[in-house]
Amino acid sequence: MEFSLIDRIRERTAQARDDVRLGIGDDAALLAVPAGQELAVAIDTLVEGVHFPRGTAAADIGWKALAVNLSDLAAMGATPAWALLALTLPNADADFIDGLATGFAQLAQPYRLALVGGDTTRGALTISVAVHGFVPAGKALTRTGAQVGDLVMVTGTLGDAAAGLRLVQQGGQDDPRSAWLIERLNRPVPRIAAGLALRDCASACIDVSDGLLADLGHICAAGAVGAQIDASLLPRSSALLDWFDDDASLDFALSGGDDYELCFTVSPQKLAATQAELARLGCGATRIGRIVAGEGVCVRDRDGRQRATARPGWDHFAA
Amino acid sequence: MEFSLIDRIRERTAQARDDVRLGIGDDAALLAVPAGQELAVAIDTLVEGVHFPRGTAAADIGWKALAVNLSDLAAMGATPAWALLALTLPNADADFIDGLATGFAQLAQPYRLALVGGDTTRGALTISVAVHGFVPAGKALTRTGAQVGDLVMVTGTLGDAAAGLRLVQQGGQDDPRSAWLIERLNRPVPRIAAGLALRDCASACIDVSDGLLADLGHICAAGAVGAQIDASLLPRSSALLDWFDDDASLDFALSGGDDYELCFTVSPQKLAATQAELARLGCGATRIGRIVAGEGVCVRDRDGRQRATARPGWDHFAA
Repeated sequence: MEFSLIDRIRERTAQARDDVRLGIGDDAALLAVPAGQELAVAIDTLVEGVHFPRGTAAADIGWKALAVNLSDLAAMGATPAWALLALTLPNADADFIDGLATGFAQLAQPYRLALVGGDTTRGALTISVAVHGFVPAGKALTRTGAQVGDLVMVTGTLGDAAAGLRLVQQGGQDDPRSAWLIERLNRPVPRIAAGLALRDCASACIDVSDGLLADLGHICAAGAVGAQIDASLLPRSSALLDWFDDDASLDFALSGGDDYELCFTVSPQKLAATQAELARLGCGATRIGRIVAGEGVCVRDRDGRQRATARPGWDHFAA
Repeated sequence: MEFSLIDRIRERTAQARDDVRLGIGDDAALLAVPAGQELAVAIDTLVEGVHFPRGTAAADIGWKALAVNLSDLAAMGATPAWALLALTLPNADADFIDGLATGFAQLAQPYRLALVGGDTTRGALTISVAVHGFVPAGKALTRTGAQVGDLVMVTGTLGDAAAGLRLVQQGGQDDPRSAWLIERLNRPVPRIAAGLALRDCASACIDVSDGLLADLGHICAAGAVGAQIDASLLPRSSALLDWFDDDASLDFALSGGDDYELCFTVSPQKLAATQAELARLGCGATRIGRIVAGEGVCVRDRDGRQRATARPGWDHFAA
């Protein structure tokens, strides 16, 4: 059982990596970190019914379980290298396992990411992935470092995944017009290349997993600064605006989780170069506000009034 | 919620480690592997009702989740360094979380193991731990390398944890005479020091997690050799023999999981030195058989007859 899933992923991702001295099949993998590199390590879990709706395709689950972790590496400016996978599932369904392996491998392949360990157990559907990436010593992006006067930026568009979840919950997944938003929910694309480029320009960085307000709040707390966001500047996709009115789409953009874009701060002097570099990578980035003295995140409406923000991101243990 | 568990473990394990450049609190930890060392990495999951009985104390779950992973490092001859913890639990029960943190930290402390990342999610009780250890490049113990003529050895005693599980299932956990066996089930002690010592003497090594027959079978498969075991030589504790007759205790010793002793092979020339070194560490080791040409594990009874072995270890997905 265990070997079936692991083997299926390995078949689909098999690449020789010099830094994997001993891969899957012993009590532990043996790995070599290249000289001069630090190891960036993160772990995240997806639980059925909490982090993805029941009925989500196995391939989407496999993709997303890896994507949310690679997004953490992106936020640190790290290059993905290795992953561990712990899968708990109710029964040994061959099609499900095959789909999960396929989705995981589809995302792993372009990064030459090697699966170096795994465990498969029986229980409620839960999938934990731990990822390991490399970053030159001392060069990692962190949440700490935003300076008063820095600009607040975000890649891509916000709120799409939360909107996609709403559509799935409303039974709209068969409407072809909802496909793109649901793809944003099920197949987030970690901003690895952008994270690498931002190592040389951003003063702080985080990935938007829990919603912009919550995650930008972490940057503010880490840097002992505040942030002012202009609601009118938040990048929203046309698909989002087609489905939801201004207020609802703004709520999704501010507080919806699961977008896995990067939110970062940059000094005004570096803005042009940063945007040019990201554009070269095919990754748009939008200025949405600035860092100010104080604390917390303040959102201003189109007319300059402060917007009440009731729900600062996800809390899986909230009622 | 998440920070509550992670913080409680951190409070109980806080030690400065030079190799942790950035600990918990950002998108990923930043870690430095010492020069000349390879990284040994493993992940294992415990699911309530599968890997531990419902009603197991939170502190025992926290201990065991780390122990089964450290046991993988022991089998590789690696020194523990860092861990990641992914916990899924049905509700945010403060006492449970506190107990779990306490048990985890009790085992982590003597190794100065640092918790460098975690994720806490809501769902059926499931706990995955990933561990990282160091081993000098090229010096790791593996399952591969057993030679015909080598002796098969095992540390400690076998079958205790499976017997403890049986006693719990029979409602015997309140009988003080069962305490030691149940302790062996709930608080396995990974053989880290023995694993380090065995780097210089063992030809192959594995930890006994799925039962001796299954795990020694892995050594045989990896080395393209067979093994002959003498049932009469299997080290069984007096507690095991007090509770169960010869046949039942032999079954536990051969096929019971969860002992987390080390099974290893050693050339006859190195036997005396190996036993002396392990004894110096307070770890008994018993010769239980030898490596032969062929394949698979063969068990001989007291009178030399081959013993039928119906159940080669655990399969969590078997009926």
